[in-house]
Amino acid sequence: MDQGAHVPQDEIITAAVLVIGDEILSGRTKDRNVGAIAEHLTAIGIALREVRVVGDDRDDIVAAVNALRARYTYVFTTGGIGPTHDDITADAIGAAFGVAVDIDPRAVALMAPVFAARGIELTPARLRMARIPAGAELIANSVSAAPGFKIDNVIVMAGVPDIMCSMLVAVTNQLRTGPKINSVSIVVARPEGEIADLFAAHQAAYPDIAMGSYPSFADGNYRTELVLRSANADLLEEARAGLLTLLAEREFI
Amino acid sequence: MDQGAHVPQDEIITAAVLVIGDEILSGRTKDRNVGAIAEHLTAIGIALREVRVVGDDRDDIVAAVNALRARYTYVFTTGGIGPTHDDITADAIGAAFGVAVDIDPRAVALMAPVFAARGIELTPARLRMARIPAGAELIANSVSAAPGFKIDNVIVMAGVPDIMCSMLVAVTNQLRTGPKINSVSIVVARPEGEIADLFAAHQAAYPDIAMGSYPSFADGNYRTELVLRSANADLLEEARAGLLTLLAEREFI
Repeated sequence: MDQGAHVPQDEIITAAVLVIGDEILSGRTKDRNVGAIAEHLTAIGIALREVRVVGDDRDDIVAAVNALRARYTYVFTTGGIGPTHDDITADAIGAAFGVAVDIDPRAVALMAPVFAARGIELTPARLRMARIPAGAELIANSVSAAPGFKIDNVIVMAGVPDIMCSMLVAVTNQLRTGPKINSVSIVVARPEGEIADLFAAHQAAYPDIAMGSYPSFADGNYRTELVLRSANADLLEEARAGLLTLLAEREFI
Repeated sequence: MDQGAHVPQDEIITAAVLVIGDEILSGRTKDRNVGAIAEHLTAIGIALREVRVVGDDRDDIVAAVNALRARYTYVFTTGGIGPTHDDITADAIGAAFGVAVDIDPRAVALMAPVFAARGIELTPARLRMARIPAGAELIANSVSAAPGFKIDNVIVMAGVPDIMCSMLVAVTNQLRTGPKINSVSIVVARPEGEIADLFAAHQAAYPDIAMGSYPSFADGNYRTELVLRSANADLLEEARAGLLTLLAEREFI
Protein backbone atom coordinates (compact mmCIF):
# COMPACT_ATOMS: atom_id res chain seq x y z
CA MET A 1 0.00 0.00 0.00
CA ASP A 2 2.37 2.68 -1.15
CA GLN A 3 0.04 4.32 -3.61
CA GLY A 4 -1.43 7.78 -3.32
CA ALA A 5 0.12 8.18 0.11
CA HIS A 6 1.84 11.15 1.65
CA VAL A 7 5.11 9.65 2.77
CA PRO A 8 5.95 9.77 6.50
CA GLN A 9 9.04 11.36 7.98
CA ASP A 10 9.34 13.90 5.19
CA GLU A 11 11.05 11.46 2.86
CA ILE A 12 12.01 13.24 -0.37
CA ILE A 13 10.28 11.79 -3.41
CA THR A 14 12.28 12.38 -6.59
CA ALA A 15 11.57 12.18 -10.29
CA ALA A 16 13.10 12.43 -13.74
CA VAL A 17 11.41 13.24 -17.04
CA LEU A 18 12.46 11.49 -20.26
CA VAL A 19 11.27 13.20 -23.44
CA ILE A 20 11.35 10.85 -26.45
CA GLY A 21 11.28 12.14 -30.00
CA ASP A 22 13.45 13.06 -33.00
CA GLU A 23 11.24 16.11 -33.58
CA ILE A 24 12.42 17.72 -30.32
CA LEU A 25 16.11 17.14 -31.13
CA SER A 26 15.73 18.53 -34.66
CA GLY A 27 14.08 21.65 -33.29
CA ARG A 28 10.99 21.08 -35.43
CA THR A 29 8.78 20.72 -32.36
CA LYS A 30 9.34 22.86 -29.27
CA ASP A 31 8.75 20.86 -26.09
CA ARG A 32 5.99 22.19 -23.86
CA ASN A 33 5.65 19.18 -21.59
CA VAL A 34 8.72 19.51 -19.37
CA GLY A 35 7.62 22.85 -17.93
CA ALA A 36 4.08 21.59 -17.29
CA ILE A 37 5.29 18.39 -15.60
CA ALA A 38 7.87 20.34 -13.54
CA GLU A 39 5.22 22.74 -12.22
CA HIS A 40 2.81 19.91 -11.41
CA LEU A 41 5.40 17.78 -9.59
CA THR A 42 6.59 20.77 -7.56
CA ALA A 43 2.99 21.55 -6.61
CA ILE A 44 2.24 18.01 -5.35
CA GLY A 45 5.52 17.46 -3.47
CA ILE A 46 7.73 15.53 -5.90
CA ALA A 47 11.22 16.91 -6.57
CA LEU A 48 12.12 16.85 -10.27
CA ARG A 49 15.86 16.21 -10.35
CA GLU A 50 16.73 15.57 -13.98
CA VAL A 51 15.37 15.77 -17.51
CA ARG A 52 16.67 13.98 -20.59
CA VAL A 53 15.64 14.16 -24.22
CA VAL A 54 16.53 11.28 -26.56
CA GLY A 55 15.52 10.47 -30.14
CA ASP A 56 13.36 7.64 -31.50
CA ASP A 57 16.15 5.13 -30.98
CA ARG A 58 15.46 1.96 -29.03
CA ASP A 59 18.90 1.56 -27.49
CA ASP A 60 19.02 5.21 -26.40
CA ILE A 61 15.56 4.95 -24.81
CA VAL A 62 16.41 1.70 -23.00
CA ALA A 63 19.68 3.11 -21.66
CA ALA A 64 18.05 6.32 -20.43
CA VAL A 65 15.06 4.54 -18.81
CA ASN A 66 17.31 2.09 -17.00
CA ALA A 67 19.69 4.80 -15.79
CA LEU A 68 16.88 7.03 -14.53
CA ARG A 69 14.57 4.43 -12.97
CA ALA A 70 17.43 3.17 -10.82
CA ARG A 71 18.19 6.66 -9.55
CA TYR A 72 14.82 8.36 -8.92
CA THR A 73 11.53 7.44 -7.27
CA TYR A 74 9.65 8.00 -10.52
CA VAL A 75 10.44 8.41 -14.22
CA PHE A 76 7.88 10.14 -16.43
CA THR A 77 8.28 9.61 -20.18
CA THR A 78 6.54 11.58 -22.94
CA GLY A 79 6.19 10.72 -26.61
CA GLY A 80 6.33 7.73 -28.93
CA ILE A 81 3.10 5.90 -28.03
CA GLY A 82 1.05 6.70 -31.15
CA PRO A 83 0.03 4.40 -34.03
CA THR A 84 2.90 4.92 -36.49
CA HIS A 85 6.14 3.03 -37.10
CA ASP A 86 8.22 5.69 -35.35
CA ASP A 87 6.29 5.16 -32.10
CA ILE A 88 8.59 2.72 -30.35
CA THR A 89 8.33 3.71 -26.70
CA ALA A 90 6.19 0.75 -25.53
CA ASP A 91 8.62 -1.72 -27.10
CA ALA A 92 11.64 0.09 -25.67
CA ILE A 93 10.09 0.09 -22.18
CA GLY A 94 9.34 -3.63 -22.53
CA ALA A 95 12.99 -4.19 -23.49
CA ALA A 96 14.19 -2.07 -20.54
CA PHE A 97 12.18 -4.24 -18.13
CA GLY A 98 12.74 -7.51 -20.03
CA VAL A 99 9.01 -8.18 -20.44
CA ALA A 100 6.83 -8.95 -23.46
CA VAL A 101 4.75 -6.26 -25.17
CA ASP A 102 1.42 -7.31 -26.68
CA ILE A 103 -2.02 -5.98 -27.46
CA ASP A 104 -3.68 -5.62 -24.06
CA PRO A 105 -7.42 -6.46 -23.92
CA ARG A 106 -7.89 -3.85 -21.17
CA ALA A 107 -6.53 -1.14 -23.48
CA VAL A 108 -8.71 -2.36 -26.36
CA ALA A 109 -11.72 -2.22 -24.02
CA LEU A 110 -10.93 1.44 -23.25
CA MET A 111 -10.42 2.38 -26.88
CA ALA A 112 -13.15 0.41 -28.69
CA PRO A 113 -16.29 2.19 -27.41
CA VAL A 114 -14.77 5.67 -27.77
CA PHE A 115 -13.47 4.94 -31.26
CA ALA A 116 -16.85 3.40 -32.26
CA ALA A 117 -18.76 6.44 -30.98
CA ARG A 118 -16.47 8.69 -33.02
CA GLY A 119 -16.74 6.54 -36.16
CA ILE A 120 -13.03 5.66 -36.04
CA GLU A 121 -12.16 2.16 -37.21
CA LEU A 122 -9.92 0.06 -34.92
CA THR A 123 -7.36 -0.76 -37.62
CA PRO A 124 -4.19 -2.83 -36.97
CA ALA A 125 -2.24 0.46 -36.95
CA ARG A 126 -4.49 1.90 -34.23
CA LEU A 127 -4.26 -1.35 -32.28
CA ARG A 128 -0.53 -0.60 -31.93
CA MET A 129 -1.65 1.94 -29.35
CA ALA A 130 -3.07 -0.94 -27.27
CA ARG A 131 0.34 -2.66 -27.07
CA ILE A 132 1.31 -2.56 -23.38
CA PRO A 133 4.27 -4.19 -21.57
CA ALA A 134 3.28 -7.16 -19.42
CA GLY A 135 2.63 -6.20 -15.81
CA ALA A 136 1.87 -2.53 -16.48
CA GLU A 137 -1.18 -0.69 -15.15
CA LEU A 138 -3.06 1.48 -17.61
CA ILE A 139 -3.36 5.26 -17.29
CA ALA A 140 -6.61 6.78 -18.54
CA ASN A 141 -6.60 9.20 -21.49
CA SER A 142 -9.72 11.36 -21.41
CA VAL A 143 -8.81 13.07 -24.69
CA SER A 144 -8.38 10.26 -27.20
CA ALA A 145 -8.86 7.01 -25.20
CA ALA A 146 -5.58 5.23 -26.10
CA PRO A 147 -4.04 4.79 -22.63
CA GLY A 148 -0.66 5.49 -21.13
CA PHE A 149 0.77 3.03 -18.63
CA LYS A 150 2.76 2.67 -15.44
CA ILE A 151 5.23 -0.17 -15.02
CA ASP A 152 7.02 -0.31 -11.68
CA ASN A 153 8.20 3.32 -11.17
CA VAL A 154 8.05 4.35 -14.85
CA ILE A 155 5.05 6.34 -16.07
CA VAL A 156 4.64 6.39 -19.86
CA MET A 157 2.62 9.22 -21.34
CA ALA A 158 1.79 10.67 -24.77
CA GLY A 159 3.72 13.53 -26.31
CA VAL A 160 0.75 15.61 -27.47
CA PRO A 161 0.45 18.17 -24.65
CA ASP A 162 -3.27 17.95 -23.88
CA ILE A 163 -3.15 14.13 -23.89
CA MET A 164 -0.01 14.18 -21.71
CA CYS A 165 -1.78 16.50 -19.29
CA SER A 166 -4.82 14.22 -19.10
CA MET A 167 -2.57 11.26 -18.26
CA LEU A 168 -0.54 13.22 -15.71
CA VAL A 169 -3.73 14.16 -13.87
CA ALA A 170 -5.03 10.58 -14.11
CA VAL A 171 -1.89 9.04 -12.56
CA THR A 172 -1.42 11.65 -9.82
CA ASN A 173 -3.52 9.90 -7.16
CA GLN A 174 -1.31 6.81 -7.51
CA LEU A 175 1.88 8.69 -6.72
CA ARG A 176 3.65 8.93 -3.39
CA THR A 177 4.45 12.52 -2.50
CA GLY A 178 6.80 14.13 -0.03
CA PRO A 179 7.04 17.54 1.58
CA LYS A 180 5.88 20.37 -0.61
CA ILE A 181 8.55 22.93 -1.40
CA ASN A 182 7.32 26.41 -0.63
CA SER A 183 8.67 29.23 -2.71
CA VAL A 184 8.72 33.00 -2.20
CA SER A 185 10.27 35.64 -4.38
CA ILE A 186 11.32 39.27 -4.08
CA VAL A 187 11.77 41.39 -7.20
CA VAL A 188 14.46 44.08 -7.10
CA ALA A 189 14.85 46.72 -9.83
CA ARG A 190 18.64 46.33 -9.94
CA PRO A 191 21.11 44.20 -11.92
CA GLU A 192 21.93 41.03 -10.00
CA GLY A 193 25.61 41.99 -9.78
CA GLU A 194 24.69 44.72 -7.25
CA ILE A 195 22.79 42.32 -5.02
CA ALA A 196 25.13 39.36 -5.28
CA ASP A 197 27.26 40.00 -2.18
CA LEU A 198 24.29 40.64 0.09
CA PHE A 199 22.46 37.63 -1.34
CA ALA A 200 25.45 35.30 -0.95
CA ALA A 201 25.81 36.35 2.71
CA HIS A 202 22.13 35.68 3.28
CA GLN A 203 22.47 32.23 1.65
CA ALA A 204 25.37 31.51 4.02
CA ALA A 205 23.18 32.52 6.99
CA TYR A 206 20.40 30.17 5.85
CA PRO A 207 22.14 27.12 4.36
CA ASP A 208 18.93 25.05 4.46
CA ILE A 209 17.05 27.45 2.20
CA ALA A 210 17.71 27.15 -1.54
CA MET A 211 18.26 30.64 -2.91
CA GLY A 212 18.42 31.55 -6.58
CA SER A 213 18.79 34.80 -8.48
CA TYR A 214 17.16 35.30 -11.92
CA PRO A 215 18.06 38.45 -13.83
CA SER A 216 16.32 40.00 -16.79
CA PHE A 217 16.58 43.22 -18.75
CA ALA A 218 13.71 44.78 -20.65
CA ASP A 219 12.76 48.27 -21.84
CA GLY A 220 16.00 49.68 -20.42
CA ASN A 221 15.31 48.38 -16.91
CA TYR A 222 17.23 45.82 -14.91
CA ARG A 223 15.17 43.37 -12.89
CA THR A 224 16.37 40.61 -10.58
CA GLU A 225 14.04 38.08 -9.01
CA LEU A 226 15.38 36.54 -5.81
CA VAL A 227 13.73 33.18 -5.14
CA LEU A 228 13.84 31.36 -1.78
CA ARG A 229 12.67 27.73 -1.57
CA SER A 230 12.19 25.37 1.36
CA ALA A 231 9.84 22.74 2.74
CA ASN A 232 10.06 24.55 6.10
CA ALA A 233 7.49 27.35 5.89
CA ASP A 234 8.49 29.03 9.18
CA LEU A 235 12.18 29.14 8.32
CA LEU A 236 11.31 30.38 4.83
CA GLU A 237 9.27 33.27 6.24
CA GLU A 238 12.11 34.19 8.60
CA ALA A 239 14.60 34.20 5.72
CA ARG A 240 12.26 36.22 3.51
CA ALA A 241 11.69 38.87 6.19
CA GLY A 242 15.41 39.04 6.88
CA LEU A 243 16.20 39.50 3.20
CA LEU A 244 13.64 42.31 2.90
CA THR A 245 15.30 44.09 5.83
CA LEU A 246 18.77 43.73 4.29
CA LEU A 247 17.57 45.00 0.92
CA ALA A 248 15.84 47.99 2.55
CA GLU A 249 18.97 48.87 4.57
CA ARG A 250 20.92 49.11 1.32
CA GLU A 251 18.04 51.02 -0.30
CA PHE A 252 17.68 48.36 -2.96
CA ILE A 253 13.91 48.29 -2.38
CA MET B 1 43.21 23.02 -37.90
CA ASP B 2 39.83 21.48 -37.17
CA GLN B 3 37.99 24.72 -36.58
CA GLY B 4 35.21 26.12 -38.72
CA ALA B 5 35.71 23.36 -41.25
CA HIS B 6 33.15 21.36 -43.14
CA VAL B 7 34.21 17.81 -42.38
CA PRO B 8 35.19 15.59 -45.31
CA GLN B 9 33.58 12.27 -46.15
CA ASP B 10 30.24 13.27 -44.66
CA GLU B 11 31.30 12.46 -41.11
CA ILE B 12 28.39 12.99 -38.76
CA ILE B 13 29.04 15.71 -36.16
CA THR B 14 26.99 15.17 -33.02
CA ALA B 15 26.06 17.27 -30.01
CA ALA B 16 24.33 17.26 -26.66
CA VAL B 17 22.82 20.17 -24.74
CA LEU B 18 23.11 20.36 -20.96
CA VAL B 19 20.71 22.83 -19.33
CA ILE B 20 21.82 23.82 -15.81
CA GLY B 21 19.40 25.37 -13.33
CA ASP B 22 17.10 24.64 -10.39
CA GLU B 23 14.57 27.07 -11.86
CA ILE B 24 13.95 24.82 -14.88
CA LEU B 25 13.44 21.73 -12.71
CA SER B 26 11.04 23.54 -10.37
CA GLY B 27 8.99 24.70 -13.35
CA ARG B 28 9.42 28.35 -12.36
CA THR B 29 11.29 29.14 -15.59
CA LYS B 30 10.29 27.53 -18.87
CA ASP B 31 13.33 26.70 -20.97
CA ARG B 32 13.46 28.42 -24.34
CA ASN B 33 17.06 27.64 -25.21
CA VAL B 34 16.86 23.97 -26.19
CA GLY B 35 14.52 24.61 -29.11
CA ALA B 36 16.64 27.50 -30.37
CA ILE B 37 19.89 25.52 -30.12
CA ALA B 38 18.27 22.48 -31.76
CA GLU B 39 17.09 24.54 -34.73
CA HIS B 40 20.47 26.24 -35.13
CA LEU B 41 22.48 23.00 -34.95
CA THR B 42 20.18 21.30 -37.46
CA ALA B 43 20.57 24.27 -39.81
CA ILE B 44 24.38 24.22 -39.74
CA GLY B 45 24.83 20.43 -40.00
CA ILE B 46 25.30 19.25 -36.41
CA ALA B 47 23.07 16.43 -35.20
CA LEU B 48 21.69 17.06 -31.71
CA ARG B 49 21.45 13.62 -30.12
CA GLU B 50 20.62 14.23 -26.46
CA VAL B 51 19.52 16.90 -24.00
CA ARG B 52 19.83 16.81 -20.23
CA VAL B 53 18.63 19.20 -17.55
CA VAL B 54 20.27 19.14 -14.11
CA GLY B 55 20.01 21.43 -11.08
CA ASP B 56 22.58 23.76 -9.54
CA ASP B 57 24.48 20.83 -8.04
CA ARG B 58 28.18 20.50 -8.67
CA ASP B 59 28.33 16.70 -8.65
CA ASP B 60 25.34 16.41 -11.00
CA ILE B 61 26.86 18.93 -13.43
CA VAL B 62 30.28 17.22 -13.39
CA ALA B 63 28.74 13.79 -13.97
CA ALA B 64 26.58 15.00 -16.85
CA VAL B 65 29.39 16.97 -18.52
CA ASN B 66 31.78 14.04 -18.34
CA ALA B 67 29.19 11.56 -19.64
CA LEU B 68 28.19 13.79 -22.55
CA ARG B 69 31.61 15.10 -23.62
CA ALA B 70 32.89 11.54 -23.98
CA ARG B 71 29.96 10.58 -26.18
CA TYR B 72 29.33 13.50 -28.55
CA THR B 73 31.45 15.79 -30.73
CA TYR B 74 30.22 18.86 -28.82
CA VAL B 75 28.42 19.63 -25.57
CA PHE B 76 26.61 22.96 -25.24
CA THR B 77 25.72 24.04 -21.71
CA THR B 78 23.35 26.86 -20.74
CA GLY B 79 22.96 28.56 -17.38
CA GLY B 80 24.87 29.18 -14.18
CA ILE B 81 27.53 31.67 -15.32
CA GLY B 82 26.16 34.84 -13.67
CA PRO B 83 27.51 36.77 -10.68
CA THR B 84 25.57 35.16 -7.81
CA HIS B 85 26.41 32.33 -5.44
CA ASP B 86 24.12 29.88 -7.27
CA ASP B 87 26.15 30.33 -10.48
CA ILE B 88 28.50 27.36 -10.20
CA THR B 89 28.89 26.22 -13.79
CA ALA B 90 32.46 27.52 -14.34
CA ASP B 91 33.67 25.76 -11.19
CA ALA B 92 31.86 22.55 -12.10
CA ILE B 93 33.36 22.58 -15.61
CA GLY B 94 36.81 23.16 -14.07
CA ALA B 95 36.23 20.17 -11.80
CA ALA B 96 35.04 18.03 -14.73
CA PHE B 97 38.28 18.79 -16.62
CA GLY B 98 40.52 18.82 -13.53
CA VAL B 99 41.77 22.35 -14.17
CA ALA B 100 41.91 25.49 -12.04
CA VAL B 101 39.30 28.26 -12.35
CA ASP B 102 40.45 31.84 -11.79
CA ILE B 103 39.71 35.38 -12.84
CA ASP B 104 40.88 35.57 -16.44
CA PRO B 105 42.50 38.88 -17.51
CA ARG B 106 41.14 38.38 -21.06
CA ALA B 107 37.60 38.24 -19.70
CA VAL B 108 38.17 41.30 -17.51
CA ALA B 109 39.48 43.12 -20.59
CA LEU B 110 36.24 42.34 -22.43
CA MET B 111 34.03 43.38 -19.53
CA ALA B 112 35.79 46.46 -18.14
CA PRO B 113 35.25 48.95 -21.01
CA VAL B 114 31.61 47.91 -21.58
CA PHE B 115 30.82 48.08 -17.86
CA ALA B 116 32.60 51.45 -17.57
CA ALA B 117 30.65 52.88 -20.53
CA ARG B 118 27.40 51.74 -18.88
CA GLY B 119 28.37 53.07 -15.47
CA ILE B 120 28.43 49.60 -13.94
CA GLU B 121 31.04 49.04 -11.24
CA LEU B 122 33.26 45.96 -11.60
CA THR B 123 32.57 44.64 -8.10
CA PRO B 124 34.01 41.35 -6.76
CA ALA B 125 30.60 39.76 -7.41
CA ARG B 126 30.68 40.84 -11.05
CA LEU B 127 34.29 39.64 -11.35
CA ARG B 128 32.92 36.15 -10.64
CA MET B 129 31.72 36.30 -14.25
CA ALA B 130 35.37 36.57 -15.36
CA ARG B 131 36.27 33.27 -13.69
CA ILE B 132 37.26 30.93 -16.54
CA PRO B 133 38.74 27.41 -16.41
CA ALA B 134 42.41 27.26 -17.41
CA GLY B 135 42.89 26.46 -21.09
CA ALA B 136 39.49 27.68 -22.23
CA GLU B 137 38.90 30.05 -25.14
CA LEU B 138 36.47 32.90 -24.55
CA ILE B 139 33.17 33.28 -26.41
CA ALA B 140 32.03 36.85 -27.06
CA ASN B 141 28.82 38.16 -25.50
CA SER B 142 27.52 41.12 -27.52
CA VAL B 143 24.66 41.72 -25.10
CA SER B 144 26.28 42.13 -21.70
CA ALA B 145 30.04 41.57 -22.27
CA ALA B 146 30.66 38.81 -19.68
CA PRO B 147 31.91 36.01 -21.92
CA GLY B 148 31.08 32.35 -22.30
CA PHE B 149 33.88 29.89 -22.97
CA LYS B 150 34.87 26.78 -24.88
CA ILE B 151 37.09 24.18 -23.26
CA ASP B 152 37.98 21.18 -25.42
CA ASN B 153 34.60 20.15 -26.91
CA VAL B 154 32.43 21.80 -24.24
CA ILE B 155 30.82 25.17 -25.01
CA VAL B 156 29.57 27.05 -21.94
CA MET B 157 26.89 29.67 -22.50
CA ALA B 158 24.57 31.87 -20.45
CA GLY B 159 21.00 30.90 -19.59
CA VAL B 160 19.35 34.23 -20.46
CA PRO B 161 18.03 33.53 -23.98
CA ASP B 162 19.29 36.61 -25.80
CA ILE B 163 22.75 36.26 -24.25
CA MET B 164 22.80 32.54 -25.05
CA CYS B 165 21.87 33.33 -28.64
CA SER B 166 24.66 35.90 -28.94
CA MET B 167 27.20 33.32 -27.70
CA LEU B 168 25.84 30.57 -29.96
CA VAL B 169 26.27 32.83 -32.98
CA ALA B 170 29.75 33.87 -31.82
CA VAL B 171 31.01 30.30 -31.46
CA THR B 172 29.47 28.95 -34.66
CA ASN B 173 32.42 29.69 -36.95
CA GLN B 174 34.67 27.63 -34.66
CA LEU B 175 32.53 24.49 -35.00
CA ARG B 176 33.07 21.58 -37.31
CA THR B 177 29.92 20.73 -39.23
CA GLY B 178 28.78 17.69 -41.16
CA PRO B 179 26.18 17.04 -43.83
CA LYS B 180 23.08 19.15 -43.47
CA ILE B 181 19.91 17.19 -42.90
CA ASN B 182 17.25 18.22 -45.39
CA SER B 183 13.66 17.98 -44.28
CA VAL B 184 10.39 17.97 -46.21
CA SER B 185 6.89 17.58 -44.86
CA ILE B 186 3.46 16.73 -46.21
CA VAL B 187 0.36 17.68 -44.25
CA VAL B 188 -2.64 15.36 -44.49
CA ALA B 189 -6.08 16.25 -43.10
CA ARG B 190 -6.56 12.80 -41.55
CA PRO B 191 -5.82 11.21 -38.17
CA GLU B 192 -2.45 9.49 -38.26
CA GLY B 193 -4.04 6.09 -37.55
CA GLU B 194 -5.46 6.09 -41.09
CA ILE B 195 -2.10 6.80 -42.71
CA ALA B 196 0.03 4.57 -40.48
CA ASP B 197 0.06 1.43 -42.67
CA LEU B 198 0.89 3.30 -45.85
CA PHE B 199 3.55 5.33 -44.06
CA ALA B 200 5.18 2.29 -42.43
CA ALA B 201 5.39 0.58 -45.84
CA HIS B 202 6.99 3.70 -47.32
CA GLN B 203 9.51 3.81 -44.46
CA ALA B 204 10.36 0.16 -45.17
CA ALA B 205 10.91 1.04 -48.85
CA TYR B 206 13.28 3.89 -47.91
CA PRO B 207 15.17 2.71 -44.82
CA ASP B 208 17.78 5.47 -45.19
CA ILE B 209 15.20 8.25 -44.87
CA ALA B 210 14.06 9.11 -41.34
CA MET B 211 10.27 9.36 -41.38
CA GLY B 212 8.15 10.74 -38.56
CA SER B 213 4.43 11.36 -38.12
CA TYR B 214 3.15 14.26 -35.98
CA PRO B 215 -0.59 14.40 -35.30
CA SER B 216 -2.66 17.27 -33.99
CA PHE B 217 -6.34 18.01 -33.53
CA ALA B 218 -7.81 21.48 -33.53
CA ASP B 219 -11.19 23.04 -34.24
CA GLY B 220 -12.68 19.63 -34.89
CA ASN B 221 -10.14 18.76 -37.59
CA TYR B 222 -7.52 16.04 -37.60
CA ARG B 223 -4.14 16.97 -39.05
CA THR B 224 -1.09 14.79 -39.49
CA GLU B 225 2.26 16.11 -40.61
CA LEU B 226 4.50 13.53 -42.25
CA VAL B 227 8.16 14.56 -42.04
CA LEU B 228 10.95 13.01 -44.13
CA ARG B 229 14.58 13.78 -43.27
CA SER B 230 17.86 12.90 -44.97
CA ALA B 231 21.23 14.34 -45.92
CA ASN B 232 20.68 12.90 -49.43
CA ALA B 233 18.59 15.51 -51.25
CA ASP B 234 17.98 13.38 -54.38
CA LEU B 235 16.80 10.37 -52.41
CA LEU B 236 14.65 12.63 -50.26
CA GLU B 237 12.90 14.11 -53.30
CA GLU B 238 12.29 10.63 -54.69
CA ALA B 239 10.77 9.50 -51.38
CA ARG B 240 8.67 12.66 -51.14
CA ALA B 241 7.28 12.27 -54.66
CA GLY B 242 6.57 8.59 -54.03
CA LEU B 243 4.72 9.37 -50.82
CA LEU B 244 2.59 12.00 -52.56
CA THR B 245 1.61 9.42 -55.20
CA LEU B 246 0.68 6.83 -52.57
CA LEU B 247 -1.38 9.37 -50.61
CA ALA B 248 -3.17 10.49 -53.79
CA GLU B 249 -3.94 6.88 -54.78
CA ARG B 250 -5.70 6.39 -51.46
CA GLU B 251 -7.40 9.80 -51.82
CA PHE B 252 -5.80 11.04 -48.58
CA ILE B 253 -4.73 14.24 -50.35
